[in-house]
Amino acid sequence: MKIRKAVITAAARGARLYPVADTVQKAMLPVVDIDGLPKPTIQIIAEEAFAAGIEEICVICAPGDGPRYQNAFTSLRNNLLESYKNTDWAREEAEKIDHLRTCLHFQEQAEPWGYGHAVYCARDFVKEEPFLLLLGDHLYVSNRSGQRSAAQLISLAVQEECAVSAVNPTIEHQIHRYGTLTGKHLPNRKGIYQIERIIEKPSMSTAELELQTPGLRNGYYLCFFGMHVLTPAVFTSLQAQVESGNQNIQLTPALQELAQKEKYLALEVKGNRYDLSKKQGLLQAQIALGLAGEAHDETLTSMVDLLAEANQRKTL
Amino acid sequence: MKIRKAVITAAARGARLYPVADTVQKAMLPVVDIDGLPKPTIQIIAEEAFAAGIEEICVICAPGDGPRYQNAFTSLRNNLLESYKNTDWAREEAEKIDHLRTCLHFQEQAEPWGYGHAVYCARDFVKEEPFLLLLGDHLYVSNRSGQRSAAQLISLAVQEECAVSAVNPTIEHQIHRYGTLTGKHLPNRKGIYQIERIIEKPSMSTAELELQTPGLRNGYYLCFFGMHVLTPAVFTSLQAQVESGNQNIQLTPALQELAQKEKYLALEVKGNRYDLSKKQGLLQAQIALGLAGEAHDETLTSMVDLLAEANQRKTL
Repeated sequence: MKIRKAVITAAARGARLYPVADTVQKAMLPVVDIDGLPKPTIQIIAEEAFAAGIEEICVICAPGDGPRYQNAFTSLRNNLLESYKNTDWAREEAEKIDHLRTCLHFQEQAEPWGYGHAVYCARDFVKEEPFLLLLGDHLYVSNRSGQRSAAQLISLAVQEECAVSAVNPTIEHQIHRYGTLTGKHLPNRKGIYQIERIIEKPSMSTAELELQTPGLRNGYYLCFFGMHVLTPAVFTSLQAQVESGNQNIQLTPALQELAQKEKYLALEVKGNRYDLSKKQGLLQAQIALGLAGEAHDETLTSMVDLLAEANQRKTL
Repeated sequence: MKIRKAVITAAARGARLYPVADTVQKAMLPVVDIDGLPKPTIQIIAEEAFAAGIEEICVICAPGDGPRYQNAFTSLRNNLLESYKNTDWAREEAEKIDHLRTCLHFQEQAEPWGYGHAVYCARDFVKEEPFLLLLGDHLYVSNRSGQRSAAQLISLAVQEECAVSAVNPTIEHQIHRYGTLTGKHLPNRKGIYQIERIIEKPSMSTAELELQTPGLRNGYYLCFFGMHVLTPAVFTSLQAQVESGNQNIQLTPALQELAQKEKYLALEVKGNRYDLSKKQGLLQAQIALGLAGEAHDETLTSMVDLLAEANQRKTL
């Protein structure tokens, strides 16, 4: 089994970051990546996928956004070569953007029928292959010396030849925000579970009754991290939802069906993800990337200096 | 004396922030302000001026940028009202943007002849009034409970009826990056100096010989903060430089002449400024605004969580 394709959902109409209410502008917001270079967030997500061996990416976007992404990357590339002429890093960055443009496909989600529907829109791109699914409005940050989250996930999927979802043990008062699951811990495989039951955004009492996973710390549950390797079987379940006329199609019921039909694992990834639609999300992601990357020491120094200044101002 | 006009220089062609090599895009980059709302950096700078009583602002911009700013603010306003219909804060923000649009004037700097030349381009807007001068690629962060830096500066200028430049005591190994000055400490006026001598980006040895200011900590010098209240007399000196055919016109020599012709003070402002063109500048400004504003506790919690996560990942 080889995993060559990734899908990034970026059509979200709900969560918006003021003053960037536009999905393309939001995806093109610059953040300093772990290599110290500022890049559009969508490029950082795509590079997470490339680092895991992905060759082609389909961005599920709002109607009309495809050509706008292409234009944004073209002008970014041209700006770069014009403004930083004759520097090696600018030429390397421009080559990366050229590569990105050849690997990116765009698929419009014509109707705003939910996250499951956005994933369903990738069916013609995915065809009969397993694929990596990422969120377009999250940044994933991993340990710089270790494997990145997507690579951890793909290596397990290839090894076990099955679907795998990334999970994070999450404290009970936060689980109402996530898809939450339980399963059987695979013997002698640290942080790997055979998924049995998934509930979207459960209450604490539901979770206590139905979603406890032995071996986790007390009060912790396994929640989706927003990164999956899925098999095309998921489209069959999504199609049934679409055909039933449902206009709020979630991914979780399709994943629950997948767990009943196929071997489907959960992996505790070593990493964090930051929701860019939340007020402090972009700042948190930026600090986390700074701390995880080449600028670790510089970021830490900045933080300490700023804390000292803030406290000095308070006591003046 | 009343100070009604401000000038923001935003035509810089030198310092660029990759991937935003475009000056308008850079000025429109969203940063979460002290009131918790993300805003374009140029709006945050303009609001610093408004909070100090400024009524009209001239942005010195690169050729063609004026209409592009107008368009960017129009679409920002429309996005806002469309995306957050019926919320009070969106209506208030839209009104602020409308107000901003009526106060903003744009003046193109046709030739890239340096910072002094950019200021000189404001002469027809400024006419015979004193004015506040701000940098378009810096964010100024003050104590949230105290007066903002521009307001501190303007109150002293009004009180003393003279030009005033904001300064920060700066450690000697950093002064080669700034205009550096010395002067006579006004008796019984904490942090206020009569300016006598200014040198642009001095070496440490020049500074030691010519720029020591009694009363400062050992190894510290008074450096420009990038915020001034100036009188129109400055244009006479700048004009002489322009007419001499100089194509790299600095502001510092004109300020040195001003100090010889008029009463001209320096004020140690209680605040910090962050250079958005520097690699970590945007991140630093964002953290500093977070710590200075309503989101202080939230920002602090994020920073502590992120440090804990980063160290956890390192030891895994």
